[in-house]
Order: sequence, then structure tokens, then C-alpha cells
Amino acid sequence: MTWTTSRLAAELGLEYKGRDRELSGCNTLEKAVSTELSFLANSKYIRLASQTRAGAVILSPEHAHLLADCILSPNPYLDFARAVQFFAKEQGALKGLSELAFIHPEARIEADVTIYPFVFVGPGASIASGTICFSGVYVGEDCRIGPNCRLYPQVSLMAGTILGRGVILHPGVVVGSDGFGFAQGDACLEKVPQIGRVIIEDEVEVGANTTIDRAALDETLIGAGTKIDNQVQIGHNVQLGEQCIIVSQVGISGSSKLGRNVVLAGQCGVAGHITIGDNCRVGGKAGVSKSVKPGTDVSGNPAIEHKKYLRSASLFGKLPELYQRIKKLESSLERLREEQEARGESND
Amino acid sequence: MTWTTSRLAAELGLEYKGRDRELSGCNTLEKAVSTELSFLANSKYIRLASQTRAGAVILSPEHAHLLADCILSPNPYLDFARAVQFFAKEQGALKGLSELAFIHPEARIEADVTIYPFVFVGPGASIASGTICFSGVYVGEDCRIGPNCRLYPQVSLMAGTILGRGVILHPGVVVGSDGFGFAQGDACLEKVPQIGRVIIEDEVEVGANTTIDRAALDETLIGAGTKIDNQVQIGHNVQLGEQCIIVSQVGISGSSKLGRNVVLAGQCGVAGHITIGDNCRVGGKAGVSKSVKPGTDVSGNPAIEHKKYLRSASLFGKLPELYQRIKKLESSLERLREEQEARGESND
Amino acid sequence: MTWTTSRLAAELGLEYKGRDRELSGCNTLEKAVSTELSFLANSKYIRLASQTRAGAVILSPEHAHLLADCILSPNPYLDFARAVQFFAKEQGALKGLSELAFIHPEARIEADVTIYPFVFVGPGASIASGTICFSGVYVGEDCRIGPNCRLYPQVSLMAGTILGRGVILHPGVVVGSDGFGFAQGDACLEKVPQIGRVIIEDEVEVGANTTIDRAALDETLIGAGTKIDNQVQIGHNVQLGEQCIIVSQVGISGSSKLGRNVVLAGQCGVAGHITIGDNCRVGGKAGVSKSVKPGTDVSGNPAIEHKKYLRSASLFGKLPELYQRIKKLESSLERLREEQEARGESND
Repeated sequence: MTWTTSRLAAELGLEYKGRDRELSGCNTLEKAVSTELSFLANSKYIRLASQTRAGAVILSPEHAHLLADCILSPNPYLDFARAVQFFAKEQGALKGLSELAFIHPEARIEADVTIYPFVFVGPGASIASGTICFSGVYVGEDCRIGPNCRLYPQVSLMAGTILGRGVILHPGVVVGSDGFGFAQGDACLEKVPQIGRVIIEDEVEVGANTTIDRAALDETLIGAGTKIDNQVQIGHNVQLGEQCIIVSQVGISGSSKLGRNVVLAGQCGVAGHITIGDNCRVGGKAGVSKSVKPGTDVSGNPAIEHKKYLRSASLFGKLPELYQRIKKLESSLERLREEQEARGESND
Repeated sequence: MTWTTSRLAAELGLEYKGRDRELSGCNTLEKAVSTELSFLANSKYIRLASQTRAGAVILSPEHAHLLADCILSPNPYLDFARAVQFFAKEQGALKGLSELAFIHPEARIEADVTIYPFVFVGPGASIASGTICFSGVYVGEDCRIGPNCRLYPQVSLMAGTILGRGVILHPGVVVGSDGFGFAQGDACLEKVPQIGRVIIEDEVEVGANTTIDRAALDETLIGAGTKIDNQVQIGHNVQLGEQCIIVSQVGISGSSKLGRNVVLAGQCGVAGHITIGDNCRVGGKAGVSKSVKPGTDVSGNPAIEHKKYLRSASLFGKLPELYQRIKKLESSLERLREEQEARGESND
Repeated sequence: MTWTTSRLAAELGLEYKGRDRELSGCNTLEKAVSTELSFLANSKYIRLASQTRAGAVILSPEHAHLLADCILSPNPYLDFARAVQFFAKEQGALKGLSELAFIHPEARIEADVTIYPFVFVGPGASIASGTICFSGVYVGEDCRIGPNCRLYPQVSLMAGTILGRGVILHPGVVVGSDGFGFAQGDACLEKVPQIGRVIIEDEVEVGANTTIDRAALDETLIGAGTKIDNQVQIGHNVQLGEQCIIVSQVGISGSSKLGRNVVLAGQCGVAGHITIGDNCRVGGKAGVSKSVKPGTDVSGNPAIEHKKYLRSASLFGKLPELYQRIKKLESSLERLREEQEARGESND
């Protein structure tokens, strides 16, 4: 299909102004050429917008004066994201079930599923229509995979894992590995068998090399629409609410619960057996050691209320100065005391 | 086999009281039904125990009055862990050597080994009886794998790696990748070839996507019974003692040594070329930059003695208040000094 | 080939003194036997050097008096690294294109490429001479791989990734996974399709299980000669300069830029959309939230100038003592004020 400014605008339910051009792709304001679409979502980039060679720019009405050729949107970033989908070429070149895959005779594969070479599908597993399993994927016994999922190369779904519809697992994701549970025996640590499972609800996306452990008993749960970045670690029995954003290299310890719309910034850690309420935001590198009430922003390690953290953090670099001021206060006070005593004595 | 309360108790060498029921599985106190076993190991959950519908609960004699049907144990968590093993269904549905695997003719595979499809076993490698290699496992040349190991999907053992008996490697584990060693040349960094190997002793468990680098020269060593969680990084020439617990996302830099029974909590980091003595515990997110004497608990970054850290950490959030108090002290002192001078002058 | 002290010295362009021995390998000063080469690069190990049984030791002329048999070098570590290369046995036992691999008919494989079993090469991909793809590697459509690369087991190159010459990707590396980009829709987060790519320049080495995301639009770039350790996360649109050193478990957020010769120590994090100038060094576990000028060393979270950080960090452990001193100042001042007032009144 050939896209034009007018057709794009119509598809997005938006108005455009200026020339109606043919558009063959999307790019940044700096790099776009006259056949490419771009966007302006942040006033910081107004200068780039005014200099762009893009064929059309999605922007908000308040910026419409900047450019002759544009598409007007109340939410330019969202509409650009939608527009990019029209141009994006889906990854993956194969269709159907590869003869180089291993599909157990007791697995159930619906129509319109793509299985690449070197995929393993165990007995009792089921894969619904529209799902693609790339090369090297392992689907353990009794896994249930919903429709329209993408399992990129080297993904491992251990036995009994359940995925909803439209789940995306990037390369190297591990779902359903054993939780980290050991009991102290007389001479050594004894393994606590991990016999629960993992449920990942609809429209969840999980980044490359992220690991999600199965529950010890019961379930580890990732709520619908939650987005997880690369190299995140999610312990056994964790429950994530819907529409959470978990940035890369975060670790969530066993049995902790997150509400809805929680944002965990990069490299933060959440201790075990605590609850983080709806709409909380946790700062990068924070260490959350206690439960957090809904709607609270926290930062630091151990995490405290975010604004309080900012004030303390800004003083951390001033500790040497504060230390000097304390020493000076001590000597000044001592001198003053001596003077006062001297004066007192001379007055006596 | 059908399990009953009496048979379970007998198997565990414990006494039971109440009804002798048929038991078909294990669950939490909250979710267990009348055919399931549960446990009470923490007084915090006494209320849940008194309300449980579990068919039997493993608990300590002091809690025996709470429930009619229970198994009495001096260590309920440990005995529950052992009981779960009777109910746990081992992962893995295949047996024998898959014809879809690549096993080099110069590899030595003992009887009763299971090799899944798409496993690669290189020349000179040996795999002992009872070991299972899941789909996608790579066993490099000259690796030696002991009996009863589990190598889950996508595990890579690079050339020359040695595993003892009963080693469990979860999906995506990499053992024997090159250590990070470069020498500054005139124009660029030159690779220092990493020609050592990795030895993993008996009963070690390694979590998903953890990486353990081969030694530059000599050996990287993981001591018997040590348990490593997901996404841990272990640098070249590191030596871990026996029965250590390394929680997820920990990083241990090259050539550092841990003694026996060391616990490293999540996301902590250990600098290179240092020693952490027997029975030390390192707090979550700590950064250990100097050697630590046996039996010491440390926290913080840079890590200091744990109790000291707790006191300092609690004051971090009070820095703004301390700052105000210092400013107030300065102005009060200044005022006092002025008053004293004024008084002194008026007295003169 | 048989190596001797004299031949090694000649090959390295160095002089030797003492016996000319046959050498069959390399080892540490402590473990080397009389047929092994070792090195002394740090005065800390002089005692070990004087006790070594190594057949020859590469050391600097100032240490030549320590040992009868040695090779003299102005840069012993660099020359040892080069010497090790003569003894190192390259990993990998196979040659040629395995019949157990899947190579798409529209892929272009040059002569002298090695493709292991269970490798997937997609349509439009090209692989240049001398490159080895180990078992389980995924090469997506339209990837271009330069000459003499090593792609170790389970590496995933997603569609359109470009590698220069001599690139080494350790097991489990993911290149070209989707960046973490979502736009807030009315009811849920909507995926921003990631349609850029990743370019990795010549002589880059990337550690096990590291992930490098494709650009949203445009390119993620890893500059020539840069060395990246295990479990590093590199976000979309990041640009790394040449000859950088990125230690394990570092995270670099989207669109940030590093100059040349930047060193990021272990577990540090870099916020998005910032620039770290040439020759900067960032301390372990630091959190860099603002751009850093060339040649600056920073540490801490949020990162500040390194020397300043050291002073503040050393005072962190003294916070309880400082707190006591402030309290004491307050009470002393109060007492002094009371005394002064008392005195004043008695004088009036």
C-alpha cells in the first residue's frame, strides 16, 4: 500500500494541512527526507522541526505555525506511534510449521501458527492462531500460548506457563524457571521444589534476557498490558498489576505485589513480601525495602519519599562542607565559652 | 504412588495427629484444599493456619494446638520442602538421545543420559549417567558433566567446563565465556586470551541467565552446594566457597574469593581481587570494595559494618533537617557572640 | 609449533636473558611449572616472582634482577597478552557449513565461513569470510556480518543488524531487540514500533547475555574497538564512541551518547538523553543523571565529581557521630546562652 499525508491523516482520524505527499517511511526530525514522516512531541525540539526536511510532521495545533506540511494531533507521540505501525515491516521471514522443528505429537497447534526451525514444543502444550515461535524457542510441556503472540529466538517457557493474547517475549526471555528457594538442612541447603507456575496476561511485552520465576506453590502473575524491559528479574510468586512499566535491570524479590500503573525505573530493587500500591513510581537505582502506599513516589536506598530524597541527595555532596561547619561551630563555641569565662572571672 | 498423612509422616520420620487423609498435592495455607498438604513455619501466619482447609499441615509442636490434622516437625519448612519433592513432577517429557541432536562421535555419553533435540555436544565432551540436557543446550569440546545434572534450555557450557554431580543450570546460563581482560596497546585495547576454565562442584544450582566467566589462566571455581540465583555475573578467576547463597543480579568482579556460607543479597557488587570471609553476609545493593573479615555483616556503598550502615542510612533522610540545625546553630552562635561583645563593651 | 623462550622473545620483538627453554603454555606466577611462561606486571607480586618455578617470566627491565630466566618488556602485561595468543587454542571444533543448520536460500555466505548445527540464517543476510556462528545462533533477515567474527552459542541478531570485522559476541548476546518505547493511549500503553537498527563497528567484543536494543528510528551504534562485558543493557538509539570499556551489569538508557575511551565501571547506570564526554570514567554503581564533560571522573548516585564523592562517602559512615556533635552543640550553645543571660542579669 502507498501512504500519503491525506490517507495517513484519515486513517488516524486527524486533519492535515499543506501538501499531500507520498510517504514511504518515518524518521527523526533531523534525518527525515521529503518522503518521510516525522513528529514533534516536545517543545525542546521546535528548532529541529523548523529546519526539518520531512514530508509531513505530526504535531499539536499550537505548533502548526512552524511548518507548512503537517498533521495536527492532540497527542503527537501517540499518533506517530500509530503511524509508524503502517510502515513497520514485521520481523520474521518464514510462515507455517518448519520441518526442522520438534513438535510433540501431543501438542496442539492451531491454524496460522508459525514455528521456526529448531523450536521445541513439548507434550500437552497448545499454541493459538497467529502466534510465531522464532528459532530456538523452547515450549515446555503443558504450556498454553494465546493467539498473536511473538516468541523471539531462544525464549524458554518452562512447563505449565500460560500466556494470554498478544504477548511479546523478546530474545532470551526465560519464563517459569525455578524460584530461588532453599531450606537450611543439617549439613547443606536443600532445594524447595518449585511447583507453581507463571501466568502472563494479554498484551504484556517482556524485554530481552528478562527472567520470570515460577511460583513455589501457586502462581507468579504479570497483569495485562504491563511492559517489562530487558534484563529484569522477577522472583517467585510476584504479582504485577496491569499497565505497569518495569524498566531494565530491575529486580523484584519473591512474593512482592505491585498494583496498577506502577513505574519502576532502571536498576531499582524491590525487597520480598512487600506491596507497592497503584500508581506508585520508584526512582532509578532505588532500593524499596518496605511497602509503599498508592500514589507515592519514592527514591533512594533505602527508598524514601521522592522529594525528601532529592533534598537529602543534594546535601550528600555537601557533607564535607557541613563537616567543616560543624568543626568550626565547635571551635567557635569553645572560644566563646572561654571568652565568656574569662570575662566572667575578670568581672568577678 | 498415593500419599496419605501417615505415609508422609513415616517417610519424613515424623509423627502426625488427627485424621489420616489422602494427599494429592501441596499448597499455601490460604489456597490448600482438603486433599493438599501445607505448612506453618512462621508465627506471622498463625491466623491463616487456623483458617486453612488443608488436609494436613506440617508445623512445630508448639503450634499443634491450632489444628486437628497436622504433622509435627522440629523444622517445618525443611520437612515441607522434602514433602513437596514427593509430589513434584519433574520437568521434561523426553527420554534417551534425540536423533535431532548433534553428538560428536568423539563425545562420551553414559547410559541413562537424556539429550533433547537441538542439543550440541562437542568432541571430547563427556556426560555422566542420569543427566538431562534440554533443547538448545551447547556443550563445548572437552566439557565434563557429572551424573544427575540438569541443563535446562539454551544453557551454554564453553570448552573445558567441568560440572560435578547433581548440578542444576537453569535456562540461558552461560558457563565458561571469556573473562573481561584487555591490555592497553598503543592504539587500541588488545584482548588477553582467556585460557583458563570453570569448575562447578557438586550440588550447585545456577539461576536463569547467570553468567560465569572462565579464568584468564587457571580456574574459576564454584564450591559444592552453593546456590546462585538468576542474572548473577561471576568474573574470571572468582572462587566461591561451599554453601554460599548468591541472590539475583549480584556481580562479583574478577579474582575475588568468597569463603563458606557467604550470603550476598540481591544486586550487590563485589570489587575485584578481594576476599569475603566465611559466614559473611552482604546487604542488598551493597558495594563491597575491600576485603571483609569472616563472620561480618556489611551493607551500603561503599560497604561498611551493617549496624553502622543502618544508623547512617536512617540519618540520610534527615540531612535537610541537620542542615537547618547547623545553619541555626551558626546564626545563634553569631548572635550570642555579638550580644556578648555588646555586653562586654558596655561593661568596659 | 614448538615455542621456546628465544623464539617467543623474537616474535614479540623483545630480548631475553637466561636459559632458552621449551614452553608449552602460560600460567600465573604461583602455578606455573618449568615449561610455562608467566609475567610480572605489578610490583605487588615481586615476592611471587622470586619464588616462581616458571620457565620464563615476562617482566620490565627494572625487575630483571629478580629472576635468571626472563623476557624483558617495556609493557609486560601487553606482551604477555600477545604471548598467550600463541598458546591459546581457539574454541570451536567444527569447520564448514553444517547440514543441520537452516540457511535461507536468499542468504549469502562467503567462503571459509563456519556454521554450526541449529544455526538459523534468514533471507537477505550475509556472512563474510572467516566468521564462525556457533550452535543456536539466530541471524535475522537482512543482517550483515563482517569477516572474522565469532558469534558464540545462542546469540540473536535481529533483522537488519550490521556487524563490522572481528566482532566477538559471547553466548546469549541479543542485538537488535526492540527498544522500550510506548505511548500512553487512552486505556493502555501503545507500542511504538522500533524500526531502526544496530550497527556494531570493527573489533568490538560483547559479553555473555548482554542486550543491545535497535533504535526506534535511525541507529544504535557501538564504536570500533569498544569492549562490553557480560549482562550490560544498552537502550535504543545509544551511541558509544570508540575504545570504550563497559563493565558488567551496566545499563545505558535510550539516546545517550558516550565519547571515546569512556570507562563505565560495573553496575553503573546512565540516564537517557545525556552525553558523557571523551575519556570520562564513571565509578562502580554510580547513577549518572546529567551530562558529563570530557575527561571528568564521576561517582555516586546521583553521580558527582569523583574526588568530591570520595570525601562525602567517607563521611556517610560518620553521620551518627556528626548527629551527636550537632546535638551537643545545640545543648552547649543553649547552656552558654543561659549562663550569659544569668551573668548579664547579675551584672545589671
